[in-house]
Amino acid sequence: MTYCVGMMLDRGLVLMSDTRTNSGVDNISVFQKMTHWNVPGERIISLMTAGNLATTQSVISQLEERTKAPEDRQNSLMELPTMFQVAAEVGRTLRQTVRETQSKNGQSGEGRFTASMILAGQIKGMEPRLFMIYPEGNFIEASLDTPFFQIGETKYGRPIIIRAYNREMNFEDAVKLLMVSFDSTLKANLSVGLPLDLLVIEKDKYEPAYEQRIEATDPYFSLISSSWSEALRSAFDGLPNFSFDRADG
Amino acid sequence: MTYCVGMMLDRGLVLMSDTRTNSGVDNISVFQKMTHWNVPGERIISLMTAGNLATTQSVISQLEERTKAPEDRQNSLMELPTMFQVAAEVGRTLRQTVRETQSKNGQSGEGRFTASMILAGQIKGMEPRLFMIYPEGNFIEASLDTPFFQIGETKYGRPIIIRAYNREMNFEDAVKLLMVSFDSTLKANLSVGLPLDLLVIEKDKYEPAYEQRIEATDPYFSLISSSWSEALRSAFDGLPNFSFDRADG
Repeated sequence: MTYCVGMMLDRGLVLMSDTRTNSGVDNISVFQKMTHWNVPGERIISLMTAGNLATTQSVISQLEERTKAPEDRQNSLMELPTMFQVAAEVGRTLRQTVRETQSKNGQSGEGRFTASMILAGQIKGMEPRLFMIYPEGNFIEASLDTPFFQIGETKYGRPIIIRAYNREMNFEDAVKLLMVSFDSTLKANLSVGLPLDLLVIEKDKYEPAYEQRIEATDPYFSLISSSWSEALRSAFDGLPNFSFDRADG
Repeated sequence: MTYCVGMMLDRGLVLMSDTRTNSGVDNISVFQKMTHWNVPGERIISLMTAGNLATTQSVISQLEERTKAPEDRQNSLMELPTMFQVAAEVGRTLRQTVRETQSKNGQSGEGRFTASMILAGQIKGMEPRLFMIYPEGNFIEASLDTPFFQIGETKYGRPIIIRAYNREMNFEDAVKLLMVSFDSTLKANLSVGLPLDLLVIEKDKYEPAYEQRIEATDPYFSLISSSWSEALRSAFDGLPNFSFDRADG
């Protein structure tokens, strides 16, 4: 499994992903699920992936090669004119990869080898944009109503994002929020694991404003993890008490 | 979908279930998922169910009939000598019901019509016990290491239980904790819905210590729901801040 979140703020985009892949619980590995490309001063594009690892690595490699091989430059993420066209190209590559692997495997391939992606980025002259791309190659875009996307093991970490997200928040608070959301997920589900990858895309900057790999020994993450347990318990203790005689009702 | 939690405390057992059933999002209904039987002064037994509604209703009806029809009394939940035997009997009835419906439906029935259950109760002379029963008819029992069971849509409401549960807590705090856990689930998932059913089984009492249907208009639940959002936000605000220059790291 996997957990990735992409979040749209007024100031830009914040992305976080875990790095655990597993095939059963006895075969776990660390693989990066977040990639980015940028042309300084002109564009920055990042992808986070969840699903079949062979599929997602293949998609990333194909996209990567096109940014380098001159004969394929017409579909390169580095040259497509809008984020919408980038999303369409990533979707096309994903759909083809999934379909080819499935069809090679006949009936037993049905519904397997799928993957989903979160695409985030900005191209000069346009706003930062955030997309969720499905294995079928189609995609949706974030809006003010739904300003963040999650893929993978999304449920444990969702309640805190729903409650604490605010589009005007600064990057520091957004990173804090994502760390809390990841901590809740890590504590509940073995298939999501440290280290985490963090990328901050500041509006109109066209290069990573901040990127970091958060290891198990990271002092801030450890502090959040222990403080959040305490904070939750004391928030819980501070709630009005239930009474069986319902005199308060 | 469904959300039910059964929790073992030093003082007894606390159970809560939602009441929403759905077949698609355009066909939702209210059905009770919690049932209990008791022989005053001798035993109290409660079942919560998740999964295919036709299956769970059939199981409950069969168990219910046996408590009333004299010719079947040998397998009646009211007369079996231990909670272990009650769990085995419920498991047997569940497995048979699932298998019969599946086999009547041939290949298209494979893997459908399943259900899971949480069984809680106490029989005089023995400790209160809590079981989770699988569609295959086998079951596991709660212990100090895993003192609560959830069935249905379990993920959203799990982080707070993991952090705030304490076996020495009183019933009032346990009810408060379950309400918070249900509130997180209700806010995130349309397939879990009000009203909720609450049952408190006090050790050595052999009758419901407290039972209540919590409606959407319940003033305490509304208070918890609004206070918890605020409490979470201020717990979040109170956490140490992230800093990009990591001077604090």
